[in-house]
Amino acid sequence: MKLSQIGELPLLEQIRKRFEKHSSHVLIGIGDDAAVIKPANEKLVVTTDMMVEGIHFNLRFMTPYQLGFKLVSVNVSDIYAMGGKPKFILLNIAMNKTTDKTVFDSFLDGIHKAMNLYGLFLVGGDISASHEGISVSATVIGYAKKYVKRSGAKIGDRIYVTGTLGDSSCGLEILKRLSYKSRKMVKDIVLLGDGEGAKRRNGEKKKSPSLRLSDSPGLLLEWNDVEPLLMRHLMPVARDPKTFSRNATSMIDISDGLLIDLSRLCDESKVGARIYIENIPLSSELKKVSSYLGISPIKLALSGGEDYELLSTVPAGKKIKATYIGDITESERVIVDSLKREKTFIAEGYQHFGI
Amino acid sequence: MKLSQIGELPLLEQIRKRFEKHSSHVLIGIGDDAAVIKPANEKLVVTTDMMVEGIHFNLRFMTPYQLGFKLVSVNVSDIYAMGGKPKFILLNIAMNKTTDKTVFDSFLDGIHKAMNLYGLFLVGGDISASHEGISVSATVIGYAKKYVKRSGAKIGDRIYVTGTLGDSSCGLEILKRLSYKSRKMVKDIVLLGDGEGAKRRNGEKKKSPSLRLSDSPGLLLEWNDVEPLLMRHLMPVARDPKTFSRNATSMIDISDGLLIDLSRLCDESKVGARIYIENIPLSSELKKVSSYLGISPIKLALSGGEDYELLSTVPAGKKIKATYIGDITESERVIVDSLKREKTFIAEGYQHFGI
Repeated sequence: MKLSQIGELPLLEQIRKRFEKHSSHVLIGIGDDAAVIKPANEKLVVTTDMMVEGIHFNLRFMTPYQLGFKLVSVNVSDIYAMGGKPKFILLNIAMNKTTDKTVFDSFLDGIHKAMNLYGLFLVGGDISASHEGISVSATVIGYAKKYVKRSGAKIGDRIYVTGTLGDSSCGLEILKRLSYKSRKMVKDIVLLGDGEGAKRRNGEKKKSPSLRLSDSPGLLLEWNDVEPLLMRHLMPVARDPKTFSRNATSMIDISDGLLIDLSRLCDESKVGARIYIENIPLSSELKKVSSYLGISPIKLALSGGEDYELLSTVPAGKKIKATYIGDITESERVIVDSLKREKTFIAEGYQHFGI
Repeated sequence: MKLSQIGELPLLEQIRKRFEKHSSHVLIGIGDDAAVIKPANEKLVVTTDMMVEGIHFNLRFMTPYQLGFKLVSVNVSDIYAMGGKPKFILLNIAMNKTTDKTVFDSFLDGIHKAMNLYGLFLVGGDISASHEGISVSATVIGYAKKYVKRSGAKIGDRIYVTGTLGDSSCGLEILKRLSYKSRKMVKDIVLLGDGEGAKRRNGEKKKSPSLRLSDSPGLLLEWNDVEPLLMRHLMPVARDPKTFSRNATSMIDISDGLLIDLSRLCDESKVGARIYIENIPLSSELKKVSSYLGISPIKLALSGGEDYELLSTVPAGKKIKATYIGDITESERVIVDSLKREKTFIAEGYQHFGI
């Protein structure tokens, strides 16, 4: 059934019923002109981010479910990057009126899954017809006792990143280059439903398919290598820094690429940075698959973007549970390779409106 | 110059510089991962609304300046409708990369004008390329000591509306039906710049143009009649209920039309309503122009939408500075005409995804 056969008000009513979860913080939830939230003693942390079809995502590669999940994650990632705890979410959804209701429902399923993961309450939103394609945005509001700015890095601090870098952009590269048949196979397994199909299916079938690239048909990619890369791109989970944010002097999430986001942190802190290539955390899957794809894993890790890992600086004496990748210096911006050769880096990563 | 010749980061930097206004409430404004706002003793009121090109607006009829102004107003209207004071705004802007920079600037000018009018601070946002057309949304956060729900109306309460109804939808109807030459004339006067061109130009030229409709070329519409209707559609100013919200038992803003929004209020309050057609406030301009257009002014006032006036209910003994249009009853939903004939009404007004 198409959205036009249902109409805005019944859709809003469905959302309202589905997300009408009571929080002691929420005095008025969805369904009035605006939401009302109880005063709290902590500071308020607020962010907003949007995702536009054909720009941020392509529904040939991604399900509406994953879109919903990712929209929440990218916003939560910004709250975490300030040292905040995400609490409330507002959504804006624009879809063409010929969109099938299952797309709308699947998108909400993904939103819901992520909301439960991060402990969020839906307090508002707007739905609209769109002229073409899907355009969605979310605003997330959270609390923080102490917050961590981009501008607090001090000379001598150590630079850390969570997780591994480059996996997401490698996952996107795979999705773009899969053969028609392999993409269909991936869709059947991982792109449909709740993204957990792979595990269930693998469990049932006791086998993992091999995948082919359209431009190198002779090459077989193994499912177990590919899956974590795809999932990091399709359904990134934001990193909660609660165990280490009290030690961080500055923090930013890596959304546009390590170099561009590190440059931002340095700009705001008015410092330099020295990064050791050998220290950059790379997953074994990235190393393996990127060589098949003929792309340098380091290039993906430095400027691939969409990692949604946290980059933070910590005074030299303190340690955090993340990977030490370099040091804050006075003004240089240098990458050091395994042979101790130095190379200056500039902000490099994704920009909208790029030529 | 096109947005693609400038790039995302310089655009963000321009926004940051322009809106970097300090508020004692804002600890971290735009430029970090998320904004940080000081705790306050009052309740938090939050809303979000979007406007999509080809759905909510048409740039043949409206300038980017007016779009920016209206986007802020429609969100502020929701905060006012809860009895809140708007304080902070976040923006999402998606524009095609071939969009001219003047469009972007003019949109921000309109946002800025409205922000100053309502006393708002920009604390966050996101800009993105779009595939086609402009799509914008805003989230507004405010404070409230006491808030007014839709659900508080009691049997015997009186129903009030602010301002006059139907002007905005009549303005839109005029814009749609103007002859090519007259639309160009309107654009030159009122649709360009800050929307205040009309007054200046009139002052300079000491004349007001007459306008023609494409479907009734023999008919002349007088500028002084048309202007307030156009302006109510293009640059609505949200109504601040601070002088009367303490007396209101329920409140909603009229965005989709009096009947649909009154029905929402009745649904939430589990009551009925009896409306007196004779009491519905109509502007003299609406009465005059709607007769030229061959549309019932009452129809526009009852279900035209986009009025952004406030509909509220008040106990019978109390008076507020607004127009009394009817009474809250047990369960009937009735419109009474000047001959005391009664007609049942149903929720009627604009719905997205309508067939």
